[in-house]
Amino acid sequence: MTQWVYNFGNGTADGDAGMKELLGGKGANLAEMAGLGLPVPPGFTITTEVCTYYYDHEKTYPGDLKDAVAAALAKVEKGLGRTFGSTDKPLLVSVRSGARASMPGMMDTILNLGLNDQTVEALAKESGDARFAYDSYRRFIQMFSDVVLGVEHHNFEDVLEEHKDRLGKSLDTELTGDDWKAVVKDFKKLVQDERGEGFPQDPQAQLWGAIGAVFGSWMNTRAITYRRLNDIPAAWGTAVNVQAMVFGNMGDDCATGVCFTRNPSTGDDHFYGEFLINAQGEDVVAGIRTPQPLTEFERDQQESNLQSLETAMPPVFGELVAVRDKLERHYKDMQDMEFTIERSKLWMLQTRSGKRTAKAALKIAVDMVAEGLITKEEAVARIDPAQLDQLLHPTLDAKAEKTVIGRGLPASPGAATGRIVFSAEDAEAWVDKGEKVILCRTETSPEDITGMHVSEGILTTRGGMTSHAAVVARGMGTPCVSGAGELRVDYSKKTLHAMGQTLNEGDVITLDGSTGEIMLGEVAMIQPEVSGDFGELMAWVDEIKVIGVRANAETPLDALTAKKFGAEGIGLSRTEHMFFDPHRIVHMRQMILARDEAERRKALDNLLPHQRQDFLELFHIMDGLPITIRLLDPPLNEFLPHTDEEMAEVAKAAGVTTEDVRVRRAELDESNPMLGHRGCRLAIAYPEICEMQARAIFEAQAEIMKEGKKAFPEVMVPLVSVKKEFEMQKAIIDRIAKEVMAEQGIELPYMVGTMIELPRACLIADQIAEQAEFFSFGTNDLTQTAYGFSRDDAGTFLDIYQRQGVLEQDPFVSIDQEGVGELVQIGVERGRKTRPDIKLGICGEHGGDPASVAFCHRVGLTYVSCSPYRVPIARLAAAQAALADK
Amino acid sequence: MTQWVYNFGNGTADGDAGMKELLGGKGANLAEMAGLGLPVPPGFTITTEVCTYYYDHEKTYPGDLKDAVAAALAKVEKGLGRTFGSTDKPLLVSVRSGARASMPGMMDTILNLGLNDQTVEALAKESGDARFAYDSYRRFIQMFSDVVLGVEHHNFEDVLEEHKDRLGKSLDTELTGDDWKAVVKDFKKLVQDERGEGFPQDPQAQLWGAIGAVFGSWMNTRAITYRRLNDIPAAWGTAVNVQAMVFGNMGDDCATGVCFTRNPSTGDDHFYGEFLINAQGEDVVAGIRTPQPLTEFERDQQESNLQSLETAMPPVFGELVAVRDKLERHYKDMQDMEFTIERSKLWMLQTRSGKRTAKAALKIAVDMVAEGLITKEEAVARIDPAQLDQLLHPTLDAKAEKTVIGRGLPASPGAATGRIVFSAEDAEAWVDKGEKVILCRTETSPEDITGMHVSEGILTTRGGMTSHAAVVARGMGTPCVSGAGELRVDYSKKTLHAMGQTLNEGDVITLDGSTGEIMLGEVAMIQPEVSGDFGELMAWVDEIKVIGVRANAETPLDALTAKKFGAEGIGLSRTEHMFFDPHRIVHMRQMILARDEAERRKALDNLLPHQRQDFLELFHIMDGLPITIRLLDPPLNEFLPHTDEEMAEVAKAAGVTTEDVRVRRAELDESNPMLGHRGCRLAIAYPEICEMQARAIFEAQAEIMKEGKKAFPEVMVPLVSVKKEFEMQKAIIDRIAKEVMAEQGIELPYMVGTMIELPRACLIADQIAEQAEFFSFGTNDLTQTAYGFSRDDAGTFLDIYQRQGVLEQDPFVSIDQEGVGELVQIGVERGRKTRPDIKLGICGEHGGDPASVAFCHRVGLTYVSCSPYRVPIARLAAAQAALADK
Repeated sequence: MTQWVYNFGNGTADGDAGMKELLGGKGANLAEMAGLGLPVPPGFTITTEVCTYYYDHEKTYPGDLKDAVAAALAKVEKGLGRTFGSTDKPLLVSVRSGARASMPGMMDTILNLGLNDQTVEALAKESGDARFAYDSYRRFIQMFSDVVLGVEHHNFEDVLEEHKDRLGKSLDTELTGDDWKAVVKDFKKLVQDERGEGFPQDPQAQLWGAIGAVFGSWMNTRAITYRRLNDIPAAWGTAVNVQAMVFGNMGDDCATGVCFTRNPSTGDDHFYGEFLINAQGEDVVAGIRTPQPLTEFERDQQESNLQSLETAMPPVFGELVAVRDKLERHYKDMQDMEFTIERSKLWMLQTRSGKRTAKAALKIAVDMVAEGLITKEEAVARIDPAQLDQLLHPTLDAKAEKTVIGRGLPASPGAATGRIVFSAEDAEAWVDKGEKVILCRTETSPEDITGMHVSEGILTTRGGMTSHAAVVARGMGTPCVSGAGELRVDYSKKTLHAMGQTLNEGDVITLDGSTGEIMLGEVAMIQPEVSGDFGELMAWVDEIKVIGVRANAETPLDALTAKKFGAEGIGLSRTEHMFFDPHRIVHMRQMILARDEAERRKALDNLLPHQRQDFLELFHIMDGLPITIRLLDPPLNEFLPHTDEEMAEVAKAAGVTTEDVRVRRAELDESNPMLGHRGCRLAIAYPEICEMQARAIFEAQAEIMKEGKKAFPEVMVPLVSVKKEFEMQKAIIDRIAKEVMAEQGIELPYMVGTMIELPRACLIADQIAEQAEFFSFGTNDLTQTAYGFSRDDAGTFLDIYQRQGVLEQDPFVSIDQEGVGELVQIGVERGRKTRPDIKLGICGEHGGDPASVAFCHRVGLTYVSCSPYRVPIARLAAAQAALADK
Repeated sequence: MTQWVYNFGNGTADGDAGMKELLGGKGANLAEMAGLGLPVPPGFTITTEVCTYYYDHEKTYPGDLKDAVAAALAKVEKGLGRTFGSTDKPLLVSVRSGARASMPGMMDTILNLGLNDQTVEALAKESGDARFAYDSYRRFIQMFSDVVLGVEHHNFEDVLEEHKDRLGKSLDTELTGDDWKAVVKDFKKLVQDERGEGFPQDPQAQLWGAIGAVFGSWMNTRAITYRRLNDIPAAWGTAVNVQAMVFGNMGDDCATGVCFTRNPSTGDDHFYGEFLINAQGEDVVAGIRTPQPLTEFERDQQESNLQSLETAMPPVFGELVAVRDKLERHYKDMQDMEFTIERSKLWMLQTRSGKRTAKAALKIAVDMVAEGLITKEEAVARIDPAQLDQLLHPTLDAKAEKTVIGRGLPASPGAATGRIVFSAEDAEAWVDKGEKVILCRTETSPEDITGMHVSEGILTTRGGMTSHAAVVARGMGTPCVSGAGELRVDYSKKTLHAMGQTLNEGDVITLDGSTGEIMLGEVAMIQPEVSGDFGELMAWVDEIKVIGVRANAETPLDALTAKKFGAEGIGLSRTEHMFFDPHRIVHMRQMILARDEAERRKALDNLLPHQRQDFLELFHIMDGLPITIRLLDPPLNEFLPHTDEEMAEVAKAAGVTTEDVRVRRAELDESNPMLGHRGCRLAIAYPEICEMQARAIFEAQAEIMKEGKKAFPEVMVPLVSVKKEFEMQKAIIDRIAKEVMAEQGIELPYMVGTMIELPRACLIADQIAEQAEFFSFGTNDLTQTAYGFSRDDAGTFLDIYQRQGVLEQDPFVSIDQEGVGELVQIGVERGRKTRPDIKLGICGEHGGDPASVAFCHRVGLTYVSCSPYRVPIARLAAAQAALADK
């Protein structure tokens, strides 16, 4: 028979902290504390399995639940010598939800349950405080009616206001016991009027109403939204915790508070917390009274003139310190605890691992290793890789004033301040004048790259988390807010409209790419600090991880950043990004506009020295570490201009007519460029492009190696779907390598491989591996083609899909392990079948996503590659994946 | 040890007709004829394996080939009592290429090899005809020099012309033996001058030169192109046939000719052929002399005044008739033979299955079954499904005069004549006036559908074989020439520019969609004839085939055609095609422009009766046969207008501003619409669309069934990639079905299934099959996503790919069995694993391609679906696939 209900309290418990899945986080920890002999008010937990049962059976309970709850309640009654619903020493309880993970949006708490017109009198008598009893009763009616009966909160507020007006009193604290009694009467009338039946007097009905409300709240909109945003499956369910009430508001020997075993902001090993005398838990949070510091140390730190608990109630404080030590040693982690002191007796209401800043997380982990509390492996396992991001970008000073003028998607983390500009050219012009700029566009395109590079931040009014702006900005580590739909950009007037205001070019704004906020003027910022703890932890990380971590980098700045953050090579260097430079795009355009191969070769000859220089710098910086260089990938149209003016300019430079440019643009125009004439398809049509790029690579390599340095290019052919495509490109690359070696009289080590980024490539990976020495899985394109989702367009429906639960998460953010993942696995297996020692990597956005890194570790890739700023995150995720293996 | 050389002749042969792969078609048949005891000039075949060896070993021969050739040659010498290179009874040989399939572009024939300054004299002496000997010698020098030595033909023609001028003679026949001797001298001088060395006098050198030339010609451009166009792998290689010369030009008791065992145009069982007295084979083809009819019957038929062979040489004719009977009975197929009569002796030079018209093919197959020569199965196996197409469309009268003004791709077969118009609206306007039109566009889009429907033919200047125009036209059975790049359409002036001419709206042109030709004015046509043989054969086809054949059909006309051609149901009915009708598109556009769900529902309510009427007609026609109805699929933007004028009109009709329309268009604009907000993604965003369509289907079904008729809809959800997408749509469809059943008080049988058209859908087919009752593989989209090829854009590079041999064939025409095919197989296996009786079909272009039909049969699909006009082809292909299984 399934055990649906678990008791805790009085020094024992049916459950323990290991049973979070069944009891929820709160329930499991209450059981654990009770089991440890800590003073926990007794109670019981109805398991998450009941929740699952409830939704699987048209919102009904298991047949034997009633009896189990009754038995559990009887145990609580017996332990405390109180009786639920009795007019003599009545038992009052709280009812709380408790999922595995803490979940805002769920029903939180109903206190004082069990009060009715009879038991309130018993409570008044027992406490000797009618005011306390009736205040508790009216709070209960209000909370229960709101949450369980659907009579909204403001109705009760209105009634209370009437009473206060009539009494000429303004504060709740001024009301007497009789006043509250009168309020209770009207509250009950209100319930009767609104519902057609009275407030339930039967404590059992109250209890089951509250239990039903907890389970019901699991499927309310806010909870669903929260689960979607945090990747929590609906199938987990919530538990219900029913626990005897204790009161921190029965007088001045009562108190309530929250505390952390260490400082959650800094990680310092100091007991930290706050409390209020004669108050209920909600008062601490409500912010009406200023909470008092827990310790004297803290009081000094805060220069507070309020009394600390250490001074106010030394014996109880001593007990609490003992609890702190016990719990931290027991859980081996910093704890966030809630406590209540009822008539000088300490009760522990909750403990859980405390939330902390990234900085604190690192410090606590490193300190605990030094203290011998946890191992290095445990320290590494405990840091949330996503949180590391905080440490790698400037952040807004939380204390700074700010005027928010709009919101978009937090597309690339970090904060930035600058003058607004509306085109890539203007960005460069202002930067040349020594100004910092924020580039504002409806959306960006590849020709904005150089402008994006020089900008402090990027703001777009269209596009999602995976739009061009977002992807490129994350790659560059530049803060970006995308899809700020309420803002409007007017290119012709060079203005930005936001909340009725019009900003002109040159006006200063601040972006927060971590929250999506857009603010007027400059806002104070905190620069990232890579503290010693961080370095220490990352050293452990590198000892543990198995899979390599490389970075995607094209520019010297990217490459330097990558190396600084510990990249073991470059996993993706997109050569086309190098062509958007104004000095080069002319030749690129001449190449595209060429009427024949001879003209095309001439233009390519002009590009060669630039491209060679690019590679020279990268080889120099990476100093022998491998660099995967992807040959030209995007459709040629991306390099041609859009406006008439630009077209005229290009025509002049290329020695053709504007009409020629227009015609060529139209010729190259494609319905679905993503699936069009790009990737190796370009170099099969124009082999001279591949020849030029190969020559640039090998000539640069020869130059570096002649200086006695090392360099190792991995030349990567993009978008292969047919074996012969790869063979033809490899033949060209090998031929050029041979030529350069002969010309330069030097042996050049290199590899030729391919992107595996199309479903068909995965399926024929065994054939491709006959000649390919490495694969790099391009999971961005693989996701696009496996799902048939265009990354540029999917924003509209992916949003709907996530809201409606069609997809648990955005497959462009975290790899779809089921579908896209199977394709990768097929590619890995078949590639290895032909060539057991084939080098296997992944490049693109997924390489920096911890869950995706874990997947890559599991399928046995050689390395992941991600944007330079995510390298530490990927390294940590890789180590955690290795630990999970053990 | 590999046998590289196979002898034949003198009543025996090393090989036989079954060895085509090794000996090529010609060599295998020569061996077979020799083995049958027919009079074949002795010779030998160098195998195709030598060709393969040659290209695998840098154009060198196997070490033991020389000896094998010498031995084979010795056998020939011995059999004939002649010696190669001897001045006494010299052996002369022909050298011919011979691949498995006949291949234009390959080196054809070198005759008289073995002649030199000595042997020519021996030939003169033996034949008693110096003129004949020197004429033969000069022909040999000319042919050999051109093909083997690279001295071009026209050089020799110039020399000959000089001689004739000098001699005052105009015809070759006027030249004497001495004249030819002088010509030979100058020919040899020409060779010496051009090459720096003389014409090879050593017969062995001649022989090996000719052999090398045959192998070399396997890789010449024309041969490569032909192979590409006919899907012949390069790896097959060619054989070389060396055969003793016989002469049809040694006097009036000599002759040469070609004949067919039955009439290749009509299929009638009459001996058919033509010949020339005193001539070499090439003279028959050259067309200088009019060939004579073979038989008296034929002479009467042709009203010829030339003597027949039957009359001219009765004994030899008798022998030839005996050969005809023997070969046809032996091969059990109509034969195409070449013969030479040397001094009244009949020699058979070749036999092969004769090419024939589709009509003849059917008649011969059906007759041969009646004659007991072959079985029904053999008859079915023998018809080329692609050829059937000829019988299903009007064709140009081959004898008609025509003025070709341009060429495009033969995108949809059949010929059509009409007045040119430049927009769908104009097409409808002219048709309303009772005119036939040809719609001319740079390219077509879905909103041209109604205009395309009323047009006789479609001409586009852009787009490939799989462009919108091509695909839609094939589906409609409308002739189409696409991508006629030399022509230019000017919409503003309503003109078509072709070869310097300007045609105006209303001018008449004729298209041939089977050849791609565009002609001025009207050209005489022949209407398709579905003869009794066709019907008889198709009855056998249906007995044999296992896989079902359905048609893709939306309109009543399509459905009627489909039924006429034997479709067993509709496999794809694209509901969106129904929305482009001018009366409906208004509501469709209102739906798209709706500001909220209420407005959208109102517009959908207006569409409902139209849509219901569509289904009513289809149910009516199909009379209980299943109809797979695909819910709305294309992105909404396809329904919105492009021009300012149209936008204003739409705005007015929809009660919004033009700016609203423009904004909505811009909102819906996508970078890659193929991967955008379409398919079930639309109905997940707007479930009311699915509701309306489901209601239209079930209400129509209820109406039909209440009349006592049958109707079986299979409701198909498009573009599923996630299990939940399908579940959500199915829930709506089932709910509406329940509602309609309750409202109408009738039980409605139906199925709900999905298109499997994305790689991810194939991978999770097991999950989808939990609820889906059928799958229809959408291999068009699957090909697009597996390869990452946009069908609309791939024309540019697919052409290059085929030319360069990257792809053997266009994967949009014939399914890529390796990649896309594996995805289909995965989908089939996983779908069946969950639901063993799941109905599995394929819809789209591949359903009408014979090779793809065979693939579908092999993987065990339930049916294929193709355009109505290809149904007979698919049925035949299905039967052939079933036969291949046995």
